[in-house]
Amino acid sequence: MLKIAVFVSGRGSNLKSLIEKIKSDLTTVELSAVISNKSDCPAINLAEENDIPYFFVNEISKEKFVTFSTLKDILNSKEVNLIVLAGFLKKIPEDFVDAFENKIINIHPALLPSFGGKGMYGMNVHKAVFESSAKVSGATVHFVNNFYDEGKIILQRCVDISDVENPAEIAERVLRIEHELLPDVVKLFSEDRVTVENNRVQIKFK
Amino acid sequence: MLKIAVFVSGRGSNLKSLIEKIKSDLTTVELSAVISNKSDCPAINLAEENDIPYFFVNEISKEKFVTFSTLKDILNSKEVNLIVLAGFLKKIPEDFVDAFENKIINIHPALLPSFGGKGMYGMNVHKAVFESSAKVSGATVHFVNNFYDEGKIILQRCVDISDVENPAEIAERVLRIEHELLPDVVKLFSEDRVTVENNRVQIKFK
Repeated sequence: MLKIAVFVSGRGSNLKSLIEKIKSDLTTVELSAVISNKSDCPAINLAEENDIPYFFVNEISKEKFVTFSTLKDILNSKEVNLIVLAGFLKKIPEDFVDAFENKIINIHPALLPSFGGKGMYGMNVHKAVFESSAKVSGATVHFVNNFYDEGKIILQRCVDISDVENPAEIAERVLRIEHELLPDVVKLFSEDRVTVENNRVQIKFK
Repeated sequence: MLKIAVFVSGRGSNLKSLIEKIKSDLTTVELSAVISNKSDCPAINLAEENDIPYFFVNEISKEKFVTFSTLKDILNSKEVNLIVLAGFLKKIPEDFVDAFENKIINIHPALLPSFGGKGMYGMNVHKAVFESSAKVSGATVHFVNNFYDEGKIILQRCVDISDVENPAEIAERVLRIEHELLPDVVKLFSEDRVTVENNRVQIKFK
């Protein structure tokens, strides 16, 4: 059983696609926890509706928020073996990243290494893509290290944007890709098909 | 009639695909000249075999080489209205670029803005792509400005590289894409469908 925790900050559309895919297809994946850095984000409603335990995280423990250090203990006690950042807009502390080496993945709404780095999130990404006149964009799932969007790439998928007229159209097309790509990557992990060798991520074929 | 000049430095595989496409399909395109910065590159044989005028260019006029300034006059006298860099490994002088603003295009063997910039040519590109664990690569045709690979993107196409085992395999797949993409872009220019508006390159639909 692959036990995953999904980290969110917003509406949780990637969480939603994951929940649906797990219900319909990923019988060896358990969504053990949803983590948010915001107490009022819509993604938490999704967790509630689906009876998934959820926690709030912050640098300092306050009201309902736990620290990353406590969160580490919670996830370890739940035997979580994959952490999925799905639109989580807070930087993960270095010691937390180090504690879960090659066990934290993130989805980025562009074809990394293009259009990544600090400040490159949400519509900022799609605006930059639009301004570059790029004719393809896409989504990237990568391991998280201590540098924004620089961890090794696990899987990518691209989409034609040669006829878009504004950044919002790019966002819409990329989001559709994201909703397929992230569950596909979780599936690969559940089948133990993601390997890191010689500092490269390779997908094992069946 | 769209009159084009193709600049080469090596074997000329993109020149070859262009010649074939012009013969078979692009009846409104004339290949008016082939330009090389090397007197012994195989691409020149292709020009000879196909009766295309060719010239050698260098910073200084020497033996059979002309300067970029003279080349400018030659191309103007031939009424060339599109310059295609197809594996041309010499930096174009700024005044030459300025003289042909939005009339010089280059093909790059990756999805710009990823894997571009000084030193990023040929196998260097594919090695960097391989080391990043990227799962898609592709080719980009862009306008040439005075910064390496930073001109506005005209057209891109991507290719899955999730199962490659070395950089040479990436090179092979990307080259196949290049051989389709460059003629497609020349076709768009010949149909007057490439526009630059608000600092963006847009493809006009028929």
